[in-house]
Amino acid sequence: MAITLGPNQYGKAEVRLVTVNRTGPVHSIKDLTVSTSLRGDLTATHLTGDNAGVVATDTQKNTVYAFAKQSPVGEIEDFALRLGRHFVRDNIKGARILIDEHGWDRIAVDGKPHEHSFSRAGDEKRTTAVTIDGDRAWVVSGLRDLVVLKSTGSEFHGFPRDRYTTLAETGDRILATAVTTRWRYQGSEIDWAKSFTEIRRLMLQKFATLHSYSLQQTLYAMGEAVLEARPEVAEVRLSLPNKHHFLVDLTPFGLENDNEVFYAADRPYGLIEGTVLRDDAEEPGLAWPTFT
Amino acid sequence: MAITLGPNQYGKAEVRLVTVNRTGPVHSIKDLTVSTSLRGDLTATHLTGDNAGVVATDTQKNTVYAFAKQSPVGEIEDFALRLGRHFVRDNIKGARILIDEHGWDRIAVDGKPHEHSFSRAGDEKRTTAVTIDGDRAWVVSGLRDLVVLKSTGSEFHGFPRDRYTTLAETGDRILATAVTTRWRYQGSEIDWAKSFTEIRRLMLQKFATLHSYSLQQTLYAMGEAVLEARPEVAEVRLSLPNKHHFLVDLTPFGLENDNEVFYAADRPYGLIEGTVLRDDAEEPGLAWPTFT
Amino acid sequence: MAITLGPNQYGKAEVRLVTVNRTGPVHSIKDLTVSTSLRGDLTATHLTGDNAGVVATDTQKNTVYAFAKQSPVGEIEDFALRLGRHFVRDNIKGARILIDEHGWDRIAVDGKPHEHSFSRAGDEKRTTAVTIDGDRAWVVSGLRDLVVLKSTGSEFHGFPRDRYTTLAETGDRILATAVTTRWRYQGSEIDWAKSFTEIRRLMLQKFATLHSYSLQQTLYAMGEAVLEARPEVAEVRLSLPNKHHFLVDLTPFGLENDNEVFYAADRPYGLIEGTVLRDDAEEPGLAWPTFT
Amino acid sequence: MAITLGPNQYGKAEVRLVTVNRTGPVHSIKDLTVSTSLRGDLTATHLTGDNAGVVATDTQKNTVYAFAKQSPVGEIEDFALRLGRHFVRDNIKGARILIDEHGWDRIAVDGKPHEHSFSRAGDEKRTTAVTIDGDRAWVVSGLRDLVVLKSTGSEFHGFPRDRYTTLAETGDRILATAVTTRWRYQGSEIDWAKSFTEIRRLMLQKFATLHSYSLQQTLYAMGEAVLEARPEVAEVRLSLPNKHHFLVDLTPFGLENDNEVFYAADRPYGLIEGTVLRDDAEEPGLAWPTFT
Repeated sequence: MAITLGPNQYGKAEVRLVTVNRTGPVHSIKDLTVSTSLRGDLTATHLTGDNAGVVATDTQKNTVYAFAKQSPVGEIEDFALRLGRHFVRDNIKGARILIDEHGWDRIAVDGKPHEHSFSRAGDEKRTTAVTIDGDRAWVVSGLRDLVVLKSTGSEFHGFPRDRYTTLAETGDRILATAVTTRWRYQGSEIDWAKSFTEIRRLMLQKFATLHSYSLQQTLYAMGEAVLEARPEVAEVRLSLPNKHHFLVDLTPFGLENDNEVFYAADRPYGLIEGTVLRDDAEEPGLAWPTFT
Repeated sequence: MAITLGPNQYGKAEVRLVTVNRTGPVHSIKDLTVSTSLRGDLTATHLTGDNAGVVATDTQKNTVYAFAKQSPVGEIEDFALRLGRHFVRDNIKGARILIDEHGWDRIAVDGKPHEHSFSRAGDEKRTTAVTIDGDRAWVVSGLRDLVVLKSTGSEFHGFPRDRYTTLAETGDRILATAVTTRWRYQGSEIDWAKSFTEIRRLMLQKFATLHSYSLQQTLYAMGEAVLEARPEVAEVRLSLPNKHHFLVDLTPFGLENDNEVFYAADRPYGLIEGTVLRDDAEEPGLAWPTFT
Repeated sequence: MAITLGPNQYGKAEVRLVTVNRTGPVHSIKDLTVSTSLRGDLTATHLTGDNAGVVATDTQKNTVYAFAKQSPVGEIEDFALRLGRHFVRDNIKGARILIDEHGWDRIAVDGKPHEHSFSRAGDEKRTTAVTIDGDRAWVVSGLRDLVVLKSTGSEFHGFPRDRYTTLAETGDRILATAVTTRWRYQGSEIDWAKSFTEIRRLMLQKFATLHSYSLQQTLYAMGEAVLEARPEVAEVRLSLPNKHHFLVDLTPFGLENDNEVFYAADRPYGLIEGTVLRDDAEEPGLAWPTFT
Repeated sequence: MAITLGPNQYGKAEVRLVTVNRTGPVHSIKDLTVSTSLRGDLTATHLTGDNAGVVATDTQKNTVYAFAKQSPVGEIEDFALRLGRHFVRDNIKGARILIDEHGWDRIAVDGKPHEHSFSRAGDEKRTTAVTIDGDRAWVVSGLRDLVVLKSTGSEFHGFPRDRYTTLAETGDRILATAVTTRWRYQGSEIDWAKSFTEIRRLMLQKFATLHSYSLQQTLYAMGEAVLEARPEVAEVRLSLPNKHHFLVDLTPFGLENDNEVFYAADRPYGLIEGTVLRDDAEEPGLAWPTFT
């Protein structure tokens, strides 16, 4: 028996980068949280503490800031690709770059968007995870913390009943979730911004318009809508917590509750996770994470 | 020497209430977090555990849900006043009701707002704190977690320099904060919704347009703008964290940084707190909290 | 009518300070989060942005770090008093210094405490809030996030029943809370460390041993135990969330639940807040916060 | 091209379960957060909303509570195995059960542990993730949020310097991390409690005593120590954030800082992730998660 080093990576997590484009009086800003991880032959530092092949995480952070100055950040996918490809050299054979983008709106003054004053757009993040391995690259983009709710148009019934089942069937319930989704791109020459905007729109539209018999059905339909319309997407993964809104029992107070008054519960919550993919999709390779 | 019971209150905190108005095909929703506290002669339970005067916090929670059914919730100030006045009877001499309102937007489908599908509007909360004491009532409303940023139009210089001062003066910096503000109402017959909308607009507009020499100056100007335009407001309190965006030093990399690349810091942060009031305002009485 | 500046303060919040005492091979560490606020004549910066009287919050942060080097930090009350008194000069008439102390234990190696390796002791924080006004000073110390639970020895019954009451009476329940408490000191020449240790011990012991008929009764008894034994304490305030553990109804599954299986709920929760004080206590003056 | 359903699972997340063992006057408590996920042939609900094969997540929650009554919970690994095996039948081919255990200490009264009063032991969680697939089962256990710090005995130098490197080499620094680790078990007849206790002790001891030249070296040594001593462990994964403690530059104030005064930074942070395994280990199969 011998003990060996298995898969590993290291880097700098959550570098908070804000850039201002000041080329004219109308400023624009980018607000990113960037995490970099490097992979390769890192046996020496693990076994003996020899750091000759360890690009310091502080250097990785500096590189993020310097790159943000050397050319415009642009779309997060492009910025991640530039960063990842830079790091791969010598013993560093691969890299994974994660970026969250935080949105800002312009403040309206007298009904017009202000030139340099902004308000935070909400909690939702646009995300990307770019993986580099030698000459190859994979891009997985997505969004997080998009909270949505339907006040009707959702049913849940027909599920099996065993000794431990007490849930009543319902023909009308609130359906609410916080969408976390990531999709794997295939091909090249992708318009990242347009693709993101369209995928987000397709998902929201499907969530809104589908009459739902289960959150699983909604999940699949959201992924399917994207794959039908966007050939640049090979695969969609969704993680949808069922943010339960329980009907409050008002009968003890002599009141009916016709789906009007709800208790929004924190925990526990349902959690529906699934993948929708094309059967002729490119192989995923190293696109998805190794570490969790 | 004797030991005695001082100020006290008790209640149910963070009751999560979501209501759906289903009077037609176009639904509307209210999403509130309600906390109730009761005050009065509660000596018996503290000294002996005699609960004859203790309206159970579970009963308080039930009351919130029942009231949400018995008549439309309406504006949070009105709902809090109704709840508070209900609780004051017998040994319960006063109440404080806190409500946070969470915003939702309609999802757009083919460019039109959907009838019953919504997305969460962001982190910002509209708030109220209503205090009842016998026949009297005070209303303090506000907002929280409104994050704003100016990419220019902010300076900071002229501050004293002592042995421990290293900060450079600046004629151009990012100014960012997360606005927490509460204002005390006076008078009666107030249009709560319109007042809130206008106060929020006035504050955002002043933040955006004021060329700022200190966050204190911005704070005062925001409060002043409200008091000048809204006679129903007696007093404005603001708590403004200075969310520092530090210019990254790129000179080690042979690069200039002309206010383009920033590090958004978490901690520590400046914290500016202040009050702006009219000199002829009604007395605050019990409007502001006792417990912290 | 005129608009004026009311109460205000400003400072640096959450300065994270860790010090290592390296006077011998056995190190000790202090891990503090320090917030400083200054008060005084700050009209100029609020009205015109003139910062001549504004000790920069960056300078306040530097001062915290420099003071930590110039003499040993010692007890947080002493460190806060030193910092606060330093800041009060010229137009700065007062200061409030808040410190949280995070505990660390030594890691045991072969049963013996290690000289320089530590593990975090938990979430609980020891706190102080020192207020300076000219020559005067007030010290309010406390603790936060001390989570405690009794699996029996707690009842709740005898509460009034109205139209909205559904809660069953109980002669045996779980009682759990996260203690937040602050006490106001009086007199001088106080052994802060010993006082803290004893107050914490007295509170825990009372929580453990009191057969409780209400959380209010437990709150009062905890405060009373401190005041009876510690003459240096003028007043105790406690804020005790009732962390509900609801008995799960297992009857649908043909099972009894004899206080064995519980659901620990997040929200809503009861919240009991109260003050216990001596009738001959020193006046509180400015000891308690102005801003919330 | 066709669109198909890929890997998926669904369940109830974060069921908060507290049990009290009341077989005598000395109570003991278990405080668990349980998440269940089921896998199998779930095509119908995804494609058509037919829920005939969907054991409701509410039923899963009920099952957790009922099982906690039917026999003592015991070690979390055993409880997870019992739950997982229960769910696998009919179209449900597999399950993953995640459990976090939260620790409680007895409150000391007059130096003796109290029979039924407890205080929360801290933030650290003992964890398990059990995967069932038909007749097979895998157990991955671990711990989270164990925060440790060495005030000396850590160096970092010898790393490559490129255009973006500014970090100084150091022969003495604070090393601090929050240990998240999971290990994969092999074989059967494992004493889960003893194994956990020993693994935790071995890791802490290695962290404390190893003179570290990089956090990677510490990570590997911690995993190696476990594998050398515990044959029931096939593989160890660790995720170690480098919780930076930066030396404060006191030279502007005429002060030296001989590794005494530090700024504990929040973000960004280094993140070191790695695997240590035996070369003759059992195959991992489905032990590690599919969804992230």
